[in-house]
Amino acid sequence: MKLTVSTAMLLEALRKVLSVVSTRSTIPVLANVLLVGRNGRLVLTTTDLEVCISTSIDATIEREGETTLPAKRFGQIVGTLPGGNVTLDTSEDLATRITCGPAFFKIMGIDATEFPKEPDFTEERKIALPSSEFAKTLRKISYGVSTDQTRYVLNGILLSIRDGNFIAVATDGRRLALVEKLLENNDGVADGDVILPIKVVHELERLLDEEGNVTIRFSEARASFSVAHTSVVTKLVEGNYPNYRQVIPASFKNSVIIPREKFLEVLNRVSVVVTDAAASVRVNLDKNILTMSASSSEVGEATEPLEVAFTGEGVNIAFNPAFLRDPIKQLECDELTLRFNDEFKPVVLLGDEGFLYVIMPMRS
Amino acid sequence: MKLTVSTAMLLEALRKVLSVVSTRSTIPVLANVLLVGRNGRLVLTTTDLEVCISTSIDATIEREGETTLPAKRFGQIVGTLPGGNVTLDTSEDLATRITCGPAFFKIMGIDATEFPKEPDFTEERKIALPSSEFAKTLRKISYGVSTDQTRYVLNGILLSIRDGNFIAVATDGRRLALVEKLLENNDGVADGDVILPIKVVHELERLLDEEGNVTIRFSEARASFSVAHTSVVTKLVEGNYPNYRQVIPASFKNSVIIPREKFLEVLNRVSVVVTDAAASVRVNLDKNILTMSASSSEVGEATEPLEVAFTGEGVNIAFNPAFLRDPIKQLECDELTLRFNDEFKPVVLLGDEGFLYVIMPMRS
Repeated sequence: MKLTVSTAMLLEALRKVLSVVSTRSTIPVLANVLLVGRNGRLVLTTTDLEVCISTSIDATIEREGETTLPAKRFGQIVGTLPGGNVTLDTSEDLATRITCGPAFFKIMGIDATEFPKEPDFTEERKIALPSSEFAKTLRKISYGVSTDQTRYVLNGILLSIRDGNFIAVATDGRRLALVEKLLENNDGVADGDVILPIKVVHELERLLDEEGNVTIRFSEARASFSVAHTSVVTKLVEGNYPNYRQVIPASFKNSVIIPREKFLEVLNRVSVVVTDAAASVRVNLDKNILTMSASSSEVGEATEPLEVAFTGEGVNIAFNPAFLRDPIKQLECDELTLRFNDEFKPVVLLGDEGFLYVIMPMRS
Repeated sequence: MKLTVSTAMLLEALRKVLSVVSTRSTIPVLANVLLVGRNGRLVLTTTDLEVCISTSIDATIEREGETTLPAKRFGQIVGTLPGGNVTLDTSEDLATRITCGPAFFKIMGIDATEFPKEPDFTEERKIALPSSEFAKTLRKISYGVSTDQTRYVLNGILLSIRDGNFIAVATDGRRLALVEKLLENNDGVADGDVILPIKVVHELERLLDEEGNVTIRFSEARASFSVAHTSVVTKLVEGNYPNYRQVIPASFKNSVIIPREKFLEVLNRVSVVVTDAAASVRVNLDKNILTMSASSSEVGEATEPLEVAFTGEGVNIAFNPAFLRDPIKQLECDELTLRFNDEFKPVVLLGDEGFLYVIMPMRS
């Protein structure tokens, strides 16, 4: 393989694929990035056997071919190059000569035949969505997955297609985050559920922030996400996601409208005095004043009022401050709606279109 | 104590004093910042019993007094405040009420009488230097101190006054960094040496980057540094600093002039292939071409030429790349001068005015 590419584009491509590379694997080639130069493109691929990321850039190819190079070290080298174009020249002894202006490197690779083959992918269903909107949808719910390894189904997020709607759900049993959207321009897609491992969700949040559509394809055991010149293939989590619909309360006695950014600011302030992960902040509603307060024996107390639109009966509800902060931080709307019955029953938080969050109050 | 200060100025003052605060001390009050409101100023002081930092800001004082508050938590609270002014109101039960707009906090302190008294300081000598220049001097040498705890004298830097010159030195036995300057406007200062602990050196690098002069005062066991409204007092390292003059070669056969930034760039690039802390980069001089190269069995090799001003005999010297990078990164000059005899004898690097660095070549 001998080819020339833009140094800046190579660096950007490497940044996209580097995150799944592990140098701790017992399989040495998994620490490497597969480089394939063919048809005017350089394709870079990495995998940890669960998630596989591929991206490609324009290349001026003198000799087609392929090799693998130590991914992190190759990234460091490209990161220090002076810019312009870089030439990669791989000889039969697996050494790759890297030339960029006066700088010259020769680094050893591993034969490309040792790099794991991508498993067969039998497409069963396919949808297309605006890519950056899908990345945002994931960010609006992904903080909510369980970290309890014994509940491995809840360690992933549910992607569900139902009656032409697309639903993404995360829950850890104490709170549930959900986004539901009409699937536009995807007529005739069959209903179905898949569970994505949280690891690939974070990769997608990072990689899909692009213009254009992401094409999502499902096989029985895998899902693939393609946008522009980048694609991500992941194993799915096996198992059945619990019936999340039953967690959402059917009716509410009260509802309050709260300015989002201001509420987040007050929450961040008041929760500074909370030192214990099990401690709560209290939200008190009395006419059009919401007062947030918290206290700890170690530090002291904090309290701050905030004007809201509320006309119902006064109430005082305790929340885990992190559980309240997580969704509000990700939303983009100006106003939040909090719906509740009393200080013991699940509270629902609404904001951006299609978003719904259920949170259990704390007992204190 | 009851007073009002600017929130932004309080935050800046807290950032200056927070670094010496330890929450792991067995003396609880050392996790706190001492606050004294008197004569129109709020003075903030922290100490770890080795180093003591004080700074003060303008305050509108309603009731003079003092207290201590948990420093890190107080800093977090002030960091979340909405701006404008903040009022601190300490009652006799050691609770301090913090009010800023609608935000209200009440946090518990420890009685100010428990805060360690500043020990007596009998001034023996005093000098004044441009503050930011002194901070730069420290940065140009402080990377060179030894981390070997058994050579505790070398864990600090030497500040020496000799015949109207001011000399700062750091060495770890394998390299030595030195800055020597004429002491202007400090007539009649007696000769003398002190050794500063590296911890306070890093504090000074951070705190003295200010306009105006720093006044440095020495007592037998302590030194104090004052600039604008901030002062730092530290214990000195006891012991005698070795005779560093004997390390500096008396004469050189050769000398080369090298563009500093370009050299640093090439060094950063070439040393990417070095994986072992004991490995070297080689600097080869042949006519007006300096070629830097490195190799490791794990990664491969790198080489890059660089045009320099050199007319001497060709030579090939091996260096520890970190030891070469440390000083060059801190200097500001356009051109470095490297002086040497052969590939075994100590090499001297010159750059900014008054700066001198001695480095032992590696054997390979």
